[in-house]
Amino acid sequence: MPDLDTFYRNYIRCLNHQSWTELGQFVSEDVEYNGLRVGLDGYRHMLERDFQQILDLQFVIRLLVTDSQTIAARLAFDCSPTGVFQGVAVDGRRLHFCENVFYEVSSGRIAQVWSVIDKTAVEMQMA
Amino acid sequence: MPDLDTFYRNYIRCLNHQSWTELGQFVSEDVEYNGLRVGLDGYRHMLERDFQQILDLQFVIRLLVTDSQTIAARLAFDCSPTGVFQGVAVDGRRLHFCENVFYEVSSGRIAQVWSVIDKTAVEMQMA
Repeated sequence: MPDLDTFYRNYIRCLNHQSWTELGQFVSEDVEYNGLRVGLDGYRHMLERDFQQILDLQFVIRLLVTDSQTIAARLAFDCSPTGVFQGVAVDGRRLHFCENVFYEVSSGRIAQVWSVIDKTAVEMQMA
Repeated sequence: MPDLDTFYRNYIRCLNHQSWTELGQFVSEDVEYNGLRVGLDGYRHMLERDFQQILDLQFVIRLLVTDSQTIAARLAFDCSPTGVFQGVAVDGRRLHFCENVFYEVSSGRIAQVWSVIDKTAVEMQMA
């Protein structure tokens, strides 16, 4: 398979284009998210919900480090979630926050995701 | 300099041993933490406070990915913070949570740290 740097940049392009029919090229049928088996369908639904709640959602890679089977990315978001986001009533106000996320790749697909979103940053901007 | 994998494992050993006189071997005098210039002294004080608030604090590396100048680590904690931790009145109860953190290394020392602690996990365990 190609190097994981290229693989990941193509995965992020897929998300930003909401090309859900291509998601299975990047994500395993049995994908786990933060220790829960959500599967490819659950993962896609999670992403679709994110784009429904956050109309201007775009994933921007700030930092990217990969080895032969692990991807680590710091993603930056500049967006306006509707309603409650990360437990905070954001109601469409504009936010900047980051997500630090690891992915384990197996058989050429993302098999595990370990994501932490900077909730403190969200809370501080809405305080 | 040695590879960043070894460098980072030695840094974590330094933290777990609270060998503060050695911290300057790993951390730049001008280190920035989440975009703020805290400097080596401020960084050491932050860590000393963490160990004072969390008597059983130990850093455990779950995932580690490095390239020539960036370190990405998923750290696991199993500990009992006193008082308020991450905005939650933990009061000595035992917690499991993770931190996803990136480090930029310059001239052989950590120059920037981008850390996100899983506050949601802390809140859920204390709910």
